[in-house]
Amino acid sequence: MTSQEKILTKNNEGKFICVGLDTDINKIPKFLQNDPDGIFKFNQSIIEATKEFTAAYKINFAFYERSGSEGIEELERTVELIPKDILSIADAKRGDIGNTSELYARSVYEHFKFDAITLNAYMGKDSLQPFLDYKDKMNYILVLTSNAGANDFEKLELKNGGFLYQKILQSVNDWNEYKNCGIVFGATKVDELKNNIKNFSKLSVLLPGVGAQGGSMEDITEIFNEENRINYIVNVSRSIIYKSSNEDYAEAARNELISLFKISSKRNAGI
Amino acid sequence: MTSQEKILTKNNEGKFICVGLDTDINKIPKFLQNDPDGIFKFNQSIIEATKEFTAAYKINFAFYERSGSEGIEELERTVELIPKDILSIADAKRGDIGNTSELYARSVYEHFKFDAITLNAYMGKDSLQPFLDYKDKMNYILVLTSNAGANDFEKLELKNGGFLYQKILQSVNDWNEYKNCGIVFGATKVDELKNNIKNFSKLSVLLPGVGAQGGSMEDITEIFNEENRINYIVNVSRSIIYKSSNEDYAEAARNELISLFKISSKRNAGI
Repeated sequence: MTSQEKILTKNNEGKFICVGLDTDINKIPKFLQNDPDGIFKFNQSIIEATKEFTAAYKINFAFYERSGSEGIEELERTVELIPKDILSIADAKRGDIGNTSELYARSVYEHFKFDAITLNAYMGKDSLQPFLDYKDKMNYILVLTSNAGANDFEKLELKNGGFLYQKILQSVNDWNEYKNCGIVFGATKVDELKNNIKNFSKLSVLLPGVGAQGGSMEDITEIFNEENRINYIVNVSRSIIYKSSNEDYAEAARNELISLFKISSKRNAGI
Repeated sequence: MTSQEKILTKNNEGKFICVGLDTDINKIPKFLQNDPDGIFKFNQSIIEATKEFTAAYKINFAFYERSGSEGIEELERTVELIPKDILSIADAKRGDIGNTSELYARSVYEHFKFDAITLNAYMGKDSLQPFLDYKDKMNYILVLTSNAGANDFEKLELKNGGFLYQKILQSVNDWNEYKNCGIVFGATKVDELKNNIKNFSKLSVLLPGVGAQGGSMEDITEIFNEENRINYIVNVSRSIIYKSSNEDYAEAARNELISLFKISSKRNAGI
C-alpha cells in the first residue's frame, strides 16, 4: 500500500486527523515520568486508544533526539507500533546537499521505515531529490507554516510577483510527477489557505497548528468541504495527547480525537 | 571559553580549516568496515591525527542517523573525543516552530554538548530564537549554500530589492546582539562571496564546498585576506578524511590537512 493510498483510504472513511506524538517526559502523567520506559508506554497506550479514528501519526524528532541515542531508540520502537494501514510521518524538516539528503532519505524511509516526511526546500530541488526518488512515499514540503515567524521570509514578496511560499508551492506542483509530493500549510493561516487552495489541487496537504497553536478544525473542514476536497491531514498534538494528565490519559485522548473526528468528518465522509 | 573565542583563537593561530566528520561506513578503509566499532575508531584516529592543525570539527548528523539509535550513539561518543579548545559543529540544519526548536536547541547544546549548529531560517526568527538564546554558542544560519539548487529559491529576487539570501543575511546581522550568530556561505559561490563580504563583517562564517564540491581554498583565502578578515572557517570533509583508503588513512588525512593549512594560513597567520 503506497503512502498516497493510505491517506486516501482514511480520508474516504471520514478520517482527517493526524495524532502528533510530541511526547515530552515533563508532560506525560506523573506515574509514567518515573517509569524508565514511560515515553514508550505512553505512546503505546495513545496509539492503541486512537488508532480507530486517526488518519495518521506524526512523530516529531525533536522530542526524541533531546535524549540522544536513548530517545532515538524510543522513536524506533514507537514507529513499529503504528499499524501498517495508517500513515506514519517523520516530522524532521530535512533538506541538505544531495549526498547528505540521500542518507537522510535512506534513514527515514529504510531504517526507521516511515511512510512520509516533512521537508524544507530552502536549499532547492537538488536538496530534496533523494526523497522525491521514493515514488511510493509522501514528501510534505514546507510552504506556509503555522508560526508567527512565517511572515519573516515565507511571505516576502518576489520581484516576479507573489510570495516566496507561493513560488515554493508552484515548484512542488512541478516536482509531483509520481504523486509523492505534499505540502505543509499552517492551519492558522485561514485566509491564505482559502486564497491558495485551488493552486494545490493535486497535492496532499498536511495542516499543523490546530489546538495549542490556535488553528480551528471547523475552519479547515469548511474550507476543504467547499472545494469538495479530500487528500489532506490535520495534525493535532498537545490538545489530544495531553488532554488528561491522570491515569485516564489514553481514554481522554481517544475521546478528544473522537470529538474532533466528528467535526472533521461531518461533511467529508463518503466523498 | 565561548564558541566565538574558540574560533578567534584558532584563526589567530592561522587555523581556518574545519574537518568534516562525514563518516560513511562504505567509504572508510575495508578493515574498519568489518569492525563493529569501525566508525568510532575511524573518527578517533582522524581526530587524533588532525587536531593540531584544525580549527573545528563538523559532524554531519545524516551520516550517523542513517543507522538510527546505534549511529546516534557513535555520534555521542565522537563528540566526546573533540578537544575542548576546538569548536564542535552540529551540522543538522535545524529550524522548527518555537516549542520544537527549544528541544532541538537543548538536544544539541546540552545533551550532545556541541559548540555550534547549522540552522535553516525559512520558518522565521521565532523558529531560531531558542538557539539564539544560547549566548556563548555559535549559530550558523544558511544564507547561500554550495549546491546548484541554491539558484532555485535562495537567489530569487525580492520585490524590495536584493535576493532572498541577502534578506536573510541582513536579518542575521539584526539577530547578532550576543555575537553568537554566523552564516553558512558556500565556498563554491566566489562572486557572491566577494560582492557580499562587506555585509557580514560582524558575523562568523562557515564555508562548506571546498574539495569534492569544487570550491577552492586559494580563492577563499584570497577573498578574506583582501578584506583583512578573520572569524571564518572553511569546511573540508571527503577530500581530507578519505584521502587514503588504506591503513595510512589517518596520516594521509593529516598530510592533506597540513597542505590545505599551508594555503589557508599563508597570509592570515598573525592578523
